[in-house]
Amino acid sequence: MGEHMNNKIEIFDTTLRDGAQGEGVNFSVVDKLDIVSALDGLGVAYIEAGNPGSNQKDLAFFERAQGMRLKSARLVAFGSTTRRGVPPKHDQNCLSLLDANTECVAIFGKSWDMHVKQVLRAELGENLSMVEDTVRFFREAGKEVFFDAEHFFDGFKHNREYALKVLEAAARGGADCLVLCDTNGGCFPDRIYELTGRVCTLFQTRVGIHCHNDCGMAAAGSVMAVKAGACHVQGTLNGIGERCGNAALSTVIPNLQEKLGYACIPAGNMARLTETARAIAETTNLAPDAKAPFVGVSAFAHKGGMHIDGVSKISRSFEHVAPESVGNKRRFLTSEMSGRGAIMPILRKYAPNISKDSKEAAELAGILKKLEFEGYQYEAAEASFELVARRHLGHGRSFFDLISYRIINEQDNTSSALIKLRVDGKEEVTAADGSGPVHAMDRALRKALEMFYPNLKKMRLIDYKVRVLESRDATAARVRVLIQSTDGAEVWGTVGVSANIIDASWKALTDSIEYKLLKG
Amino acid sequence: MGEHMNNKIEIFDTTLRDGAQGEGVNFSVVDKLDIVSALDGLGVAYIEAGNPGSNQKDLAFFERAQGMRLKSARLVAFGSTTRRGVPPKHDQNCLSLLDANTECVAIFGKSWDMHVKQVLRAELGENLSMVEDTVRFFREAGKEVFFDAEHFFDGFKHNREYALKVLEAAARGGADCLVLCDTNGGCFPDRIYELTGRVCTLFQTRVGIHCHNDCGMAAAGSVMAVKAGACHVQGTLNGIGERCGNAALSTVIPNLQEKLGYACIPAGNMARLTETARAIAETTNLAPDAKAPFVGVSAFAHKGGMHIDGVSKISRSFEHVAPESVGNKRRFLTSEMSGRGAIMPILRKYAPNISKDSKEAAELAGILKKLEFEGYQYEAAEASFELVARRHLGHGRSFFDLISYRIINEQDNTSSALIKLRVDGKEEVTAADGSGPVHAMDRALRKALEMFYPNLKKMRLIDYKVRVLESRDATAARVRVLIQSTDGAEVWGTVGVSANIIDASWKALTDSIEYKLLKG
Repeated sequence: MGEHMNNKIEIFDTTLRDGAQGEGVNFSVVDKLDIVSALDGLGVAYIEAGNPGSNQKDLAFFERAQGMRLKSARLVAFGSTTRRGVPPKHDQNCLSLLDANTECVAIFGKSWDMHVKQVLRAELGENLSMVEDTVRFFREAGKEVFFDAEHFFDGFKHNREYALKVLEAAARGGADCLVLCDTNGGCFPDRIYELTGRVCTLFQTRVGIHCHNDCGMAAAGSVMAVKAGACHVQGTLNGIGERCGNAALSTVIPNLQEKLGYACIPAGNMARLTETARAIAETTNLAPDAKAPFVGVSAFAHKGGMHIDGVSKISRSFEHVAPESVGNKRRFLTSEMSGRGAIMPILRKYAPNISKDSKEAAELAGILKKLEFEGYQYEAAEASFELVARRHLGHGRSFFDLISYRIINEQDNTSSALIKLRVDGKEEVTAADGSGPVHAMDRALRKALEMFYPNLKKMRLIDYKVRVLESRDATAARVRVLIQSTDGAEVWGTVGVSANIIDASWKALTDSIEYKLLKG
Repeated sequence: MGEHMNNKIEIFDTTLRDGAQGEGVNFSVVDKLDIVSALDGLGVAYIEAGNPGSNQKDLAFFERAQGMRLKSARLVAFGSTTRRGVPPKHDQNCLSLLDANTECVAIFGKSWDMHVKQVLRAELGENLSMVEDTVRFFREAGKEVFFDAEHFFDGFKHNREYALKVLEAAARGGADCLVLCDTNGGCFPDRIYELTGRVCTLFQTRVGIHCHNDCGMAAAGSVMAVKAGACHVQGTLNGIGERCGNAALSTVIPNLQEKLGYACIPAGNMARLTETARAIAETTNLAPDAKAPFVGVSAFAHKGGMHIDGVSKISRSFEHVAPESVGNKRRFLTSEMSGRGAIMPILRKYAPNISKDSKEAAELAGILKKLEFEGYQYEAAEASFELVARRHLGHGRSFFDLISYRIINEQDNTSSALIKLRVDGKEEVTAADGSGPVHAMDRALRKALEMFYPNLKKMRLIDYKVRVLESRDATAARVRVLIQSTDGAEVWGTVGVSANIIDASWKALTDSIEYKLLKG
């Protein structure tokens, strides 16, 4: 893949430690075990899994983790240098780090003189001894030791001699790797490149990089550090972490491996990148970032008509890497911008021989434009658009006809729906209540239809979104409702638009049911 | 602020054009007008607002936009070079660009030879004429012309002579600015720096940069281009755009201005950055990215105990810039002290002598925490929180008591509301219909209350938003309704949360009315 194929880069994931410091992130012990398995399956070298000194849950995790058989990854316990005036062998935090019983430890120490004096409130020389003694203590206990030089780049800016002295102390103590941390995330990539290069020249020890994203440049900083000689990259797979997060390894790994030819994970595992990132997002209970480079659901989604035309001719015309190389997929979004290119695959499902220049294609493109002008949007509702196309081609087979509905809401928070419809010539009246009008409608509809179409039982709604259009008119405005449904095998989206939220929901709901009945 | 205070950088926002190519983004004409106002208020130089040639809605927008009085920004219409073999004066797209009647146009043309030959299917020389002729056509029509050299960096890699010839053609045609586009987002910042510097040396014309985020490096690439001599930066305020999005200007602007001393927007406007980014996210109906550098709600949120300790001693110990410089706020996630700071101004409205350590403040902070956990959010609904505080202090004066309500929806799209309430000991029953349940509720409530409180006549709802909270449970999920109201003099926001959208709307609606009655 390029010039550096033999340049091995150690990937060090700290989702379970620095990632856990992100807002809204809270891992159970089981979550942590799941994430370790997923990261090990991807093939990262190190997994920093917690701080047993500051957190009981982390200690419980390390006890259970000892039973895991990992294929590629080694677990790392994280902690600070010993306290002022206390030798490591008497420091409670250092001892609990040993209790974690990992092959590796990461020790962070201050390298910015201001922090030593005003936050730690120690003497500068004293901090050097704390760093050296702590690193030596763990080396003598047989551990591989990563020294995280906290605030290295800010420290270097304000007192370069001292920042380098801290690295020297760690090296004297026997550190296996000196990790340069941009703890505040405020350093630009060109500066990271310059200083990492300098440290690589001065020290024989391996050099690592740990970036935060406060300038939006954590991925760039990490890649530039590797270009300058670092062989160890810390980050979190999905970029979660304190404040704006850590460097996203799902961005850094393919940048290094697919574009620059470094070896970060086994080549055969790269196609698992997307599924691993999404599985970990799921465990973290955070919505995956659709725009995430390489692994986001939109990362290879084309919407502009010229982009769709270009990619259809030559994929690299609008794709910097092949989506399948990282396990992702190309998508053409159906929208007024995308033109006929995007509607052809749907049209061809029902009329295989139809051409892009046909009357049907032109008419359907016109219908799409008109519906979008009314507020419909089909990017997340392809099932609804497929129904529009089908009806336009005269394929419409009606599974049921609505005669009337009525929804009643009382202030005790119950909603009731009364629905009258006709299936196969038979009239059915059903009623159901629910925790809201749409819930009640869904239940009443199913009651009526499940006796005719039992496979509807497998289907359920998984997402419901409301968007008010032209919000200036407030409660009299038009609303667009998007519904996502699944039957376990497939996920589909439908849309409804109306001045009345109940009516818009009804349209999206019945489209969803019709789509399921259609596909069987 | 630094070494480059007189280095003016033109900020060119394309939220309404390239941003609209992002998945899930769909602007109405009113949305677009709102976003133009917000960007103009922030002080950007140019707003690219659409492609009138490809989109009817965009043409309707430009017609309405002509009536706007902008303080700092100029509107830009976007389109491609003329078609093969057609002089611009006979090209329908070029003519519709003139119809947009803007001072400026942005013309994109191919600069990658592969694209010319295989996507555009034109001769290389022919494309040069198309670029030159199109630029000249708009210059002669009196427009300021930006030439967007599509795929410049990829083009340069494969055929550097040709990529430069395309820029020369645009310069010959009279382009005011040559914009180097990393259309596929695959170029690294060091390469962008190198090539931008080279172009700046070769051309007298202004040079601009347009980055996409497919490597997660769009912000870094934009900043490095400026360091290399570019004076014009294109992007979208919140980073939305095709695939992984465009360079986020909310990241690029403070990086350039606060950290490197360039002048992007008026210095006095920097503190509006956060509120502008959030307002535009709201209009776009995308959940704002909590981790967004500078403007995200988590950007200055400290969770690690040592970080909170450090920031409490010296803010810059874990903050690369001051949060208030960009209009954001510091938050301590594990400490309720942060909550109290924010609630004191409201509490003091009703209890002027109350202290931050009082029982009342502690209790209210606890109530706030509990309500936020339930899904309430008061950032855009301070009126509702003020009512919570007032009731907690025993100031609650009830203007009306609800006895019961009932909302009925029929499938002919009308909703009716029946409301029974007590005012001053008198019972009132009213009914009204509306184009949706909330509309009907609002009308019925007013019917009942306006006879007692005539000044309600001045009040009207101006915005209504619905967000589904835990969307996994779909239609049984909780919803949050935000309502914005005005009486001409003031604008206020209220919020309601419930499993039932009708109930959530009812809460927000009655809060809004109570707030108006309270303030008189």
